[in-house]
This record gives sequence, C-alpha cells and structure tokens, in this order.
Amino acid sequence: MDSLELIRGLARPSPSKIVLLVIDGLGGLPYPKTGKTELETANTPNLDKLAAAGICGLIDPISPGITPGSTPGHLALFGYDPVKFNIGRGVVEAMGIDFELKSGDVAARGNFCTVDEKGLITDRRAGRISTEKCAELCQLLKGLVIDGVKLSVLPVREHRFVIVFQGKGLAPDVSDSDPQQLGVAPKAVSALNAKAKTMATVANRFVEQAKIILAKRQPANMLLLRGFSQRPHLPTMSEIYKLKPAAIAAYPMYRGLAKLVGMQVLNTGATIAEEMTTLKENFNAYDFFFLHIKKTDSAGEDGDFERKVKLIEEADNSLPVLTSLNPDVLMVTGDHSTPATLKGHSWHPLPCVLNSRWCRPDRVGGFSETACILGGLGHFPATQIMPLAMAHALKLAKFGA
Amino acid sequence: MDSLELIRGLARPSPSKIVLLVIDGLGGLPYPKTGKTELETANTPNLDKLAAAGICGLIDPISPGITPGSTPGHLALFGYDPVKFNIGRGVVEAMGIDFELKSGDVAARGNFCTVDEKGLITDRRAGRISTEKCAELCQLLKGLVIDGVKLSVLPVREHRFVIVFQGKGLAPDVSDSDPQQLGVAPKAVSALNAKAKTMATVANRFVEQAKIILAKRQPANMLLLRGFSQRPHLPTMSEIYKLKPAAIAAYPMYRGLAKLVGMQVLNTGATIAEEMTTLKENFNAYDFFFLHIKKTDSAGEDGDFERKVKLIEEADNSLPVLTSLNPDVLMVTGDHSTPATLKGHSWHPLPCVLNSRWCRPDRVGGFSETACILGGLGHFPATQIMPLAMAHALKLAKFGA
Repeated sequence: MDSLELIRGLARPSPSKIVLLVIDGLGGLPYPKTGKTELETANTPNLDKLAAAGICGLIDPISPGITPGSTPGHLALFGYDPVKFNIGRGVVEAMGIDFELKSGDVAARGNFCTVDEKGLITDRRAGRISTEKCAELCQLLKGLVIDGVKLSVLPVREHRFVIVFQGKGLAPDVSDSDPQQLGVAPKAVSALNAKAKTMATVANRFVEQAKIILAKRQPANMLLLRGFSQRPHLPTMSEIYKLKPAAIAAYPMYRGLAKLVGMQVLNTGATIAEEMTTLKENFNAYDFFFLHIKKTDSAGEDGDFERKVKLIEEADNSLPVLTSLNPDVLMVTGDHSTPATLKGHSWHPLPCVLNSRWCRPDRVGGFSETACILGGLGHFPATQIMPLAMAHALKLAKFGA
Repeated sequence: MDSLELIRGLARPSPSKIVLLVIDGLGGLPYPKTGKTELETANTPNLDKLAAAGICGLIDPISPGITPGSTPGHLALFGYDPVKFNIGRGVVEAMGIDFELKSGDVAARGNFCTVDEKGLITDRRAGRISTEKCAELCQLLKGLVIDGVKLSVLPVREHRFVIVFQGKGLAPDVSDSDPQQLGVAPKAVSALNAKAKTMATVANRFVEQAKIILAKRQPANMLLLRGFSQRPHLPTMSEIYKLKPAAIAAYPMYRGLAKLVGMQVLNTGATIAEEMTTLKENFNAYDFFFLHIKKTDSAGEDGDFERKVKLIEEADNSLPVLTSLNPDVLMVTGDHSTPATLKGHSWHPLPCVLNSRWCRPDRVGGFSETACILGGLGHFPATQIMPLAMAHALKLAKFGA
C-alpha cells in the first residue's frame, strides 16, 4: 500500500498544532579553511537548544545521491513521493509567477533565443536579454487565440517566459521544441499520444506566428518551448492528514506549491521576522503551518558562504517567537542542501530536528549536519517527516488490532 | 520481488537454533524526573552483556510514525509485511479467546450496548457490564442457526464478545453494524460485493433476533458488530524459512497468531520463569523459538512505569536459563513501544540485539533505546529481523552466482 494511503486511513483531526519550519537550502559543505559548514559556522543558540531537547536525524529529499529541485524537495517534506508526483517544468514556472493554473490548462517554459539566417540556433538565451525586454516581447505575443485555444505569454526573468494554453481537449504529452543544443533548428512539437494532437498543432502554429512577429527583434528573434505540463491531481493535505494547513512563504513558487497541496496561503511580509509575525497572528486559526525561509538558498546559490551563515543566524534569532507559541510538534529542516562551495542545490542529506512532548530525545546537543548523524531519528527519507510529525502530535490512530 | 519470496528461495534447513525473545511493549519514553526510559531505569546486567557482545539496532514495526496493534507488530517480527497481511479485528478477537477459526469461517467483534426506546444508541459499551454478565448474555444467544449458517457467540471481557459464523458461501466483505457514535441507530450490515450477500443477510437476521432476545436486558439491550474477517492465508514459517518453529506464549492472542504462521504452540506456565523452563524442556525438538513476555506491555498500558521496570528486570533475571542453552542466534526485541507515560502503544522505534558467533559486534555496551541508536544494525524495519536471524544461523544460501 502507498504510504500516503496508509496515513490517510489513520489520520484523525485533533486540536494539536504542528509547525514545519523549512530553511531553504539549509544543508552545506565545509568551508575549506575551517572545516565547518554554514550551519556549523553560524551561531545558533536557539536551534541548538531545540536539538538538545528534541530528536534529530538526517533526511534525504529523494534518495541518496539525488539532487532535488525545489518542487520535489518540498513535495517530499509534505509527504508526497516526489518521483511519483513529478510536476512539470511549465507548471513550476507558472507557479513561480503566481499564475493560477486551472485543471485542463497546459503550461510550458519558454526561452527567447537567437537564430541565424538559416534558422539555426546560435544562442539559446538570446544573450540573456533584460527582464524589461522580455516583458516587451511577451506583450507582442499577447492575446493570441489559435483554434479556439487561448494563449497567455508571461515574462519570468531575463530570456525566460511562461506560456499557458487554455481550451478544450488539451493534453500535455508533447515533445519540446527546444533541442537544447546550438547549430540546429528548433524542433517541431510532436504529440506523444493521440490525445495530445490538438496541443501539438496549436503549439506549432504558435511558434510559426511567433517566428514572424519576432523576426526583426534580434537577438530575440525566435523562441523555444519545453516542459509542457498540467497541474497535477494531488490529494490535498486536508484529505490525507485531516489537517487545516496554512503556508507562510514570501516567494510565489512556494505559495503556488502550497496551494497545489491544498494549504491556505497567508499574506505575509518577506523578512523572517515578518513571517514569524504572520505565524503568531494566525496561530489559532490552523493546526499545521509550513513556514518557508528562502534567502538561505539564494545565498548558497550565489556561493556566498558568509551571507548564508548570517541568514541562518537571522532565522535562529527569530526562533523564540515561534517556540513561545508552544506548538505541539515543531520540526526544523530544509528542502535540500545548497552548499555555498558548490553554488547550487546538492544531494547531501539535511539535518532535521523534531521537538515534542512525546519525542524520545537523543544525545545530540547541537543542530548541525555532523551532530545529526548520531540522531535518534536516524537517516531517513524526507517523506517520513509528515508521518513523524503527525504521530508526535497524536493525530494518528493505531494500525491493526 | 517480495522479501518473503526472496528468503523462501534461499532458506535451507540446518541444525542451528534461533531464539526470538519478544518483550511486549519493550520500548519506552523517559520518565520526566530522571530522563530515563523504563529499560534505561531497569537494572539489566544480562541484557547489557548481550548488547556488549552482540550487534544492536533500532526497529520500526511498520514504518516511522505508525503505531502498531499487537498483531501487525508480531507479524512484522516474523517477517510478514504487516500492511499487506492485515488481519481483521474479528479474527484477532477470536484468536484472543483461543477459538480456532477454520478456513471459510467469518468472525466479528461484538459489543453489547444500550439503546433507548427509539432504538438509538446511548452507550456503546452497555455500561461496561461484567465479564460474567457478558457470558450470561452470550449463553442466551447460543446455538442459533440461520439459513444453514451456524453461529457461535462467545464472551471476551466486559461488554465484548466474538461471534463466529460457520457455513457455506460466507465472505467477510460486509460493513459494520457499529456506527461508532451515539444518538444513532445501529446500521444494517451491507455486502460490499456480490460474494458477501449471504453474510450480510445472516448477520442482519442475527441482529434482529438478538434485539428481541436482549430487549429486556437493560443496559445490555442491543449489540453492535464490527471487523468481519476471515482467517488469512499466510504462508507458514516452515514453508518460507524451512524451520521447525515453536511458540512459547501464555496469552491466547499470541498463541493464536503463532498458529496462524504455522508454529507449534507449546504448553507453558504463564510466568517468565515458567516460559524459560518450557524453552529448556523443548530445546532439542525445534530449531526456532518465539518466546513471548506479555506483562511489560500491560504495565505500560496501565501507565505503571515502576511495574514495567520491575518486569523488564524479571525478564533480564531469567535470561541466563536461555543463554545457557547456547542458541546459535538469539535476538531480543519487542513488538512495539508502550511508554508508561503515554499509557498505550506508540510509534517509537524499539531496541533490538542480535547475538551470534557470526555477528559483527558494534560498540554498544548496554541495552537501551539511546544506546541502540549507535548500533551496527542501524535503524531498520522489523520485517528484516527474520532474514538477519536466518543469515546469522547460516540458514540462507547465497543469492546469485
């Protein structure tokens, strides 16, 4: 039986409250001179206190060696098998600009690109045109309707845009037009099954029209599409866990993802302190909170070890607001590692701490990657975070007699 | 491939002997004043010696966060996936009173209850009537035959009874009559598929007759049925492991469960010392022994920390009888945690120790939840206990060339 189905059968509503604090990209790698990771370098008395009183462990977002994108990293934390519930790139990009996809819509990720006089690609990113330029080009492609299908072309950042197709009989099972290499022409979009024929036809006709409209817009004289996808049918967290869940996240993509799993997305300011205030103000109205801190990941992506350390310290510093609310279960972890030395997401497992009246404390005395190796939760898949949180909140019935 | 099928293909008979000592509800939580669990509080020199010489670990009976009933907890220890082989409540209750179900019989759990003049339930447990009263009521319902189906109504404890239906064409796929709430009438039993029509008809006719018979027996003037189920078809331990297995257990439910997986159930006294004597007397006749100590769990359920500590010490004290028999493999663990502070089964993982000439000892020096975190077996599912025991007893052939 699927683990979600097992939990769905056992979950019971109760007044107890769970907070899942996600410090994005939390895990790191040692700074060569000190041998300490970002988290180990940061001064984190509050997280250390949680670790000393609670039970710790290491989580793998997907499985050992696999580096997750932000979407699968979070889905795993919410208990969804991120390989089974793989969300397409088009959908992820649409969530990233806060575009609310309806069931049946198809979204694709787009790049403006440069082609030569023979139509062969010379730059897949059109020299990374500015976001303003991108918005201007999207404006040119606005309002198209092809075979009754409504198209929305929306700027993202630099050369990147999202295209959303809205109409009847669309299926996302089509190939990319982006060949992901130079010196060749963009490919025709082709249907991968009979249901996707309309989608392929409309996409190809759009590309033809765009080619004409963009012809004199060097370097952005063409476009490439990939990751055609639809909003997936995920069972909501309320259905599975019988929770009334709320999300506190400043970045659109995480807000979109939280909506996809049925969370109420709360209005919040973007700083950690503002997010904590939002938690405090809404604490009575929900029984599950996903609280997302983004900037740690961005610092890791930028390779800025010092800034990531500072941001971890800022998160730690704001923790007393949260702990003073006395949630029945508090879990702190991340969605993946983003070591500053690697300047990107990585596969390294993440430290995780669970605090609850009903946890069995281990001997871990501080919160760090190294200390958590010896934690009582062991080394486990991130999809088990939610079953553990639910159990410690006494929200799961006994299995079997 | 199913793990049982893998083992079935590799298992080889041999003279070596395995003892699996199950201390029911072994795992605990810290007593607030001392920070030590029941097992950590108990003086257990013999278990500590085993841990120091052997290899330790932590097991999850089902999966992290899931609290098991006794049946799935034990099935996992015997190597059966407890979610796949989910045994119904009726069957578990029948095992609990030593009623031997035949293939084709259907058993259900019953409650005597109280209904008002409109037939609405006012007490699902009929004021918890005495076991004697329950036996008297069961006597009134004795000997019924409905549509050729023979009914046996047997007292369990207080308001609880078991009903067994014996006849042709019975299937257990029917809904409960117990609505599990007050202020409503008992529900009609309905067939969940075509095969279960006879079962539903017979159950409803029984309820009608019982209603008349019990009408003036206030507070037990009605009954509720749930958990209709049949003896499952489990491959036996002899088939899978090529073992000649014996069970030493004083409580009927565990004896019934041992029979279900094909163990020979030995006659034994109920104390730990008497169970050890039974083991000694039968040691030559079998090559696998499941030895079950029940009272630790009961003490945990009662919230009696001190009594659970004493019972663990009593088990420890009797251990030399067992170790002096020099089994080739000795494993000591539990079927689930039952922390006295929680007064019930819990999801917390259990300590486990394996002793064998062929184990690779770790650095764990004593037997406790905390010490086992660092054990060489790691943190693993309880279904791997049997493959490990079989391997260390040199009863498994090499897989592949």
